[in-house]
Amino acid sequence: MLRQFNSHFVDPTTSPSKNHIYMENGNIAAASTEEVRRSPAFGWAARDTSGVLSPFTFSRRKNGENDVTIKILYCGICHSDLHSVKNEWQNSVYPIVPGHEIVGVVTEVGGKVDRFKVGDHAGVGCMVNSCRSCHECAGHHENHCPGMIFTYNSTDADGTVTYGGYSDSVVVEEHFAVRFPAGMPLDRGAPLLCAGITVYSPMKRFGFDVPGKHIGVVGLGGLGHVAVKFGKAFGAKVTVISTSPSKRQEAVERLGADAFLVSKDPDEMKAAWGTMDGIINTVSGNHEVTPLLSLLKTFGQMVLVGAPEKPLEIYAFPLLLGGKSIVGSAIGGMKETQEMIDFAAEHNVTADIELISMDYVNKAMERVAKADVRYRFVIDIGNTLSAA
Amino acid sequence: MLRQFNSHFVDPTTSPSKNHIYMENGNIAAASTEEVRRSPAFGWAARDTSGVLSPFTFSRRKNGENDVTIKILYCGICHSDLHSVKNEWQNSVYPIVPGHEIVGVVTEVGGKVDRFKVGDHAGVGCMVNSCRSCHECAGHHENHCPGMIFTYNSTDADGTVTYGGYSDSVVVEEHFAVRFPAGMPLDRGAPLLCAGITVYSPMKRFGFDVPGKHIGVVGLGGLGHVAVKFGKAFGAKVTVISTSPSKRQEAVERLGADAFLVSKDPDEMKAAWGTMDGIINTVSGNHEVTPLLSLLKTFGQMVLVGAPEKPLEIYAFPLLLGGKSIVGSAIGGMKETQEMIDFAAEHNVTADIELISMDYVNKAMERVAKADVRYRFVIDIGNTLSAA
Repeated sequence: MLRQFNSHFVDPTTSPSKNHIYMENGNIAAASTEEVRRSPAFGWAARDTSGVLSPFTFSRRKNGENDVTIKILYCGICHSDLHSVKNEWQNSVYPIVPGHEIVGVVTEVGGKVDRFKVGDHAGVGCMVNSCRSCHECAGHHENHCPGMIFTYNSTDADGTVTYGGYSDSVVVEEHFAVRFPAGMPLDRGAPLLCAGITVYSPMKRFGFDVPGKHIGVVGLGGLGHVAVKFGKAFGAKVTVISTSPSKRQEAVERLGADAFLVSKDPDEMKAAWGTMDGIINTVSGNHEVTPLLSLLKTFGQMVLVGAPEKPLEIYAFPLLLGGKSIVGSAIGGMKETQEMIDFAAEHNVTADIELISMDYVNKAMERVAKADVRYRFVIDIGNTLSAA
Repeated sequence: MLRQFNSHFVDPTTSPSKNHIYMENGNIAAASTEEVRRSPAFGWAARDTSGVLSPFTFSRRKNGENDVTIKILYCGICHSDLHSVKNEWQNSVYPIVPGHEIVGVVTEVGGKVDRFKVGDHAGVGCMVNSCRSCHECAGHHENHCPGMIFTYNSTDADGTVTYGGYSDSVVVEEHFAVRFPAGMPLDRGAPLLCAGITVYSPMKRFGFDVPGKHIGVVGLGGLGHVAVKFGKAFGAKVTVISTSPSKRQEAVERLGADAFLVSKDPDEMKAAWGTMDGIINTVSGNHEVTPLLSLLKTFGQMVLVGAPEKPLEIYAFPLLLGGKSIVGSAIGGMKETQEMIDFAAEHNVTADIELISMDYVNKAMERVAKADVRYRFVIDIGNTLSAA
């Protein structure tokens, strides 16, 4: 019999409906190209700028020779997911299935895959492809490849839109999957694939990973709390810088920061002038950055990993007089992401999470908007996502 | 006979008036400590925020064992001099003798001086002392020493105020004097001591000094035109970026830039997106920097060497997505300044100047305010400064 053709799987601009002839139950049968190429998938999607997520049936490509298919067990909720479902960056294509802190178990590997086998734990972060031939890709900086394809809300190589990890499975080229080492918990490890690499990469790039360095971490959220942990794992002295004195105990006693600095306290700030080798600024709200520059030593870098909506107002003199830098950084390349996960496993660096069920996701998004989470929601996809 | 005591030489807070006994013309005589320590000097000073310069008699310390005394022959006019004489940075102490692009001939050396002898050509740039013991000094970055003493309008180690190069002589520790190699013209070399090192230092720091690199130079003034020359001497491709299409011919044909880009032309800008390894931004007027970031390659640096009065407005996303930096840079250390002058001499890098007489200085300042100079005024101190 002819299989039912699911028009949902067709992108009319890229998929002429050719039929394939094959044998089924001893009879000659036919299937559309799309049916051969793609498998059904299920997740939760936002349909409009309300950002409300609800069950959604879609498809993913079948596992290719360079691909691994991962049954998703956990997916972290990144603030970017909230921006995306509400189209706050004006680039959302609905329906949108967010999620780029994906961890699960490999269920299928292509013939050319050599880093994974069925049953391995694997993760997928913010990107699922890149051109593989440009200067950036050659330098292991696929995150800066002009052809980089985001894990969701991006146009994939086959012309389809990518869907993220609030779903039951993902198919990805081996190169863009991360091996999860034994001992790295899958749920608390998931946020490292975005939050973790986002802070780890610049800390390595600018040499903050040396024992004895003094690192400031501005903002104690999903990114900041992981930056504190990596800083300590590197052997650095870590000072958390926050507008909220109430976070002092949390920062020092629970997360192990060496010091805490209230950025609104002029005396505390002055006492810390010129003491820091580098600052990881994780704040994505609008805030004053010039006073933070005074904390840096000569030639120090303040790394921005958050993107405030309004432009930063930066006086040139404080940059000039100390030869200081304001640097942007966005995630990291695949080689470095693997290195980060391996380092984290070795040094017990994981995210502090609140594990939630799939049907809590809309409430969780409301709480993300209010920064009401310590420090990352992770959806228990494996146990709580089920086809409606 | 007792010499006349010149009260102008006394700082009452640091100079108790002890007398020294000595022989003069066969008779026993006495002189104040200040008279022994200090020598008369002459220059032009501004007395108030009008910034008008006029003849001024003052003193300099006598040559110490680590000092060289330089008879000043040429002094460049830096835009900072204009800011200072008009107290535009709110830190001017009048009377103020500006000038920190000083070149002349050594007339006296102390017993411990080994890099200079009488008759040598020597220069003094923006600083005349530093603590010599801090981390920055140890790393040859005296320009970032917290105890660095500027060539003028700064409090010297002995408590007196420093006076700059619009004057007949300067006494400086050997460490802060620069050897002028044979073949380096003194007049056209003078501006290198500020304008030159200001652009050379970051070009070296960020690896712009490699053949084949593509460097953008924003602004074609005193700093910018020297940056073009250093860039070409390094073997880089140099593109001048300007708001004024009228500067194209000058930039390309006379200064030897490889290309010219009108920053207000969206098509020209778009064609240059992502092509530059680094940018030297010499503009000290308020201007938009975010569009310039688009010209940088991944991990590119835009170096600010000018200090606009208003804060720069910088969007975070263009920094994040390319891992780009905005970096401040201010002059350079003494070791690097010597290296710069030696490199410049070897590669025929000099400033384009308009040589003026001392009594033209106030007119020159007016023209500096209007950027009406190609590209640096240099005062012919040796031939035109005379005690009134």
